Amino acid sequence: MGGVTVAASTLPPHLDRLRIDVDRLVSRLDALAEIGPLPGGGSSRLALTDEDRAGRDLVVTWMRDLGLDLGVDAIGNVFGVRPGRIEGPPVLTGSHIDTVGSGGRFDGNLGVLAGLEVLELLAERDVLTDRAVGVAFFTNEEGARFSPDMMGSLVHVGGMPLEEALDTVGIDGATVGGELERIGYRGALPCPGAAPHAFVELHIEQGPVLEEAGITLGAVEGVQGISWQELTVRGQSNHAGTTPIRLRRDAGLVVAETAAFVRRLAVELGGDQVGTVGRMELEPNLVNVVAHTARCTIDLRNTDEATLQEAERRVQAFVEERAAQHGCEIEWRALARFEPVAFDPAIVAMVEEEARSLGHSVRRLPSGAGHDAQMLARTCPTAMVFTPSRDGISHNPAEFTDTADLQAGADVLLRCLLRLATVAEGDDPWPAT
Amino acid sequence: MGGVTVAASTLPPHLDRLRIDVDRLVSRLDALAEIGPLPGGGSSRLALTDEDRAGRDLVVTWMRDLGLDLGVDAIGNVFGVRPGRIEGPPVLTGSHIDTVGSGGRFDGNLGVLAGLEVLELLAERDVLTDRAVGVAFFTNEEGARFSPDMMGSLVHVGGMPLEEALDTVGIDGATVGGELERIGYRGALPCPGAAPHAFVELHIEQGPVLEEAGITLGAVEGVQGISWQELTVRGQSNHAGTTPIRLRRDAGLVVAETAAFVRRLAVELGGDQVGTVGRMELEPNLVNVVAHTARCTIDLRNTDEATLQEAERRVQAFVEERAAQHGCEIEWRALARFEPVAFDPAIVAMVEEEARSLGHSVRRLPSGAGHDAQMLARTCPTAMVFTPSRDGISHNPAEFTDTADLQAGADVLLRCLLRLATVAEGDDPWPAT
Repeated sequence: MGGVTVAASTLPPHLDRLRIDVDRLVSRLDALAEIGPLPGGGSSRLALTDEDRAGRDLVVTWMRDLGLDLGVDAIGNVFGVRPGRIEGPPVLTGSHIDTVGSGGRFDGNLGVLAGLEVLELLAERDVLTDRAVGVAFFTNEEGARFSPDMMGSLVHVGGMPLEEALDTVGIDGATVGGELERIGYRGALPCPGAAPHAFVELHIEQGPVLEEAGITLGAVEGVQGISWQELTVRGQSNHAGTTPIRLRRDAGLVVAETAAFVRRLAVELGGDQVGTVGRMELEPNLVNVVAHTARCTIDLRNTDEATLQEAERRVQAFVEERAAQHGCEIEWRALARFEPVAFDPAIVAMVEEEARSLGHSVRRLPSGAGHDAQMLARTCPTAMVFTPSRDGISHNPAEFTDTADLQAGADVLLRCLLRLATVAEGDDPWPAT
Repeated sequence: MGGVTVAASTLPPHLDRLRIDVDRLVSRLDALAEIGPLPGGGSSRLALTDEDRAGRDLVVTWMRDLGLDLGVDAIGNVFGVRPGRIEGPPVLTGSHIDTVGSGGRFDGNLGVLAGLEVLELLAERDVLTDRAVGVAFFTNEEGARFSPDMMGSLVHVGGMPLEEALDTVGIDGATVGGELERIGYRGALPCPGAAPHAFVELHIEQGPVLEEAGITLGAVEGVQGISWQELTVRGQSNHAGTTPIRLRRDAGLVVAETAAFVRRLAVELGGDQVGTVGRMELEPNLVNVVAHTARCTIDLRNTDEATLQEAERRVQAFVEERAAQHGCEIEWRALARFEPVAFDPAIVAMVEEEARSLGHSVRRLPSGAGHDAQMLARTCPTAMVFTPSRDGISHNPAEFTDTADLQAGADVLLRCLLRLATVAEGDDPWPAT
């Protein structure tokens, strides 16, 4: 795919004045949050459950009310498209409405409902865009019930065979295909699907960077590459009192040293390198017994593939050296590996420009979390807009973004979609009459 | 208490020739192991259960068969004493016959049954010792059902009030007092009890030191002081992808760094210092979430109290510094603290001498595990003899000591008891006629 040719950075006056109705956006967020409600204001709508169906039905009702062209594909992704003046693939926005078990009310919902709000505004003002504009919600982005996460967008772009996805068995024994049938969202559109003209996703940051810096919006340059590994160390169980240090084969120690090294390495590599040991387990896990087995996960992320590979190599070398030192055996299991994704430079620049044009502070940053946009980026020019997350919290009922920030993010989304849907001079197969 | 005056290092010829009957000892170990048997040859006889009662009944039957003076005290410790030529407290040996849930067949049983074997040998050969010689088994040494461990010997020496011990509630809700009544072992002898003349305990090492050095017996100089602490670290849960390193408050990292430090410190302090982090737990313990809470235990042991205190201080300082560095709160909970116990130098030297007199290799070493002898040491001159443990394994059905080593250990026990029961020249209030 090539980049997009985007319209000039200033919108014509009648479009430049448009602002989304943030109260309506918040009302829809509230209404959706009432499905699978959690104490504290969050929601629980695991993919393809009854709660997810109810959430889907509500959003589909809103799409129908706006008179959008509705489509559902074979993996349950739902598209609502507002035709443009010319034929061709739509400029698409969207995200997901499934949640983790203890989800917040923003997360993917914001991207879907802000897209809907853009389309409602265009309808209200009778704006006829050159290109079609659509909003989508993708199936099972969270991966909390069925693995992998971002399944719907992955299948949509041809990154996973449809049949394999449909056969996926969830944590409760149900299959994706069975559940799609059951809730009535196994659609007719083919997978892989046709590529949009471009894709822009609005999402909460899910991290503390914008808030800490006091910046309103993020222009997301790409998604960090992710390396998830599980390390199992096997040593020997021994009495903590009677076994001299030199005779120990302490599996727990190798894991502890590894966790400390992962942090040192992240600091040393600098940039946006992060490294986390979030899981550690010892056996037998007793105060007075040297652990015979220890297990941990290692999460490494970087926007630069070469540096990410270097981090992986250095962690491996460290673990091998320490395991040998302590007389332990090691075993690696790859849990996940994604290369970094770079978003389209022209759209990233457009997000920055439009934020500034509205007087908002904006910073370029990578996404540390995975998003549907990284899948769409395989087939069309793509970027994302981030709004701040209070205290960096997400996947939690305490997840929160200020209404003013919601307005800012949705307005920038609106402006980017308008520019992408506007056929630039000299680039118009169907010139306006 | 003062040290003992011990008889000359050579036993008279008729005693010097005595050797215990190791086949009879092994038969008794086998018979006792059949009570609460486990696959693989171990036993499960948690303190004051029906299995413990059956084990007690068997050993008491053997004591009666030898015509010993039987006594049971108010915490259920059982004493079988063979009178000597003179009045006064007996030279005592013994250990315990309760086990952990997955116990081996040696552990405390060896010390009790080797003592019984010594008394049987003396009876067979009509040896009349100057002082009385007795064998005891103490209640709830393991602490696997009721806390603390070494309860019976602790109460016997006045280290814990009887009523407090009797009121102790076990893991199954039963009380020590109730269970003693139920199994018929709440005896009439008072607690604290009269101090023996001296106490020598034979036990398996439960560690790998003797086996690794190819040495047959250990002359135990004392018991390591033990410091058990639980550390809870509270930081902040964060997304492992979206939270830059500098904004993290990673509780798991503090625990991991602490575990690595505990090892470095033990190596640096050297000597017999050991340090173990055997338990580590993270919350929420997920691959892609920085842990908000982490917990670990820290087990420090040394025979030198000053060094043990230094180790404690340095661990605390390290944890405080790292927690501050990572923006975490810490909370300490003391799980156990025992000062080191030094055994009686004269008896330790006697164990060495008698091992050598039989041609056995012997090494002085501390005990890394707790034993009844450390409680008895509060009231009378005390020492221990260790036999090797194959692969350092104990508290496991795979626990094993060679028959030749059992013979060596029990023979040395015999010789030490004989020497301690012999009134030295110029030290005899009732000179032989």
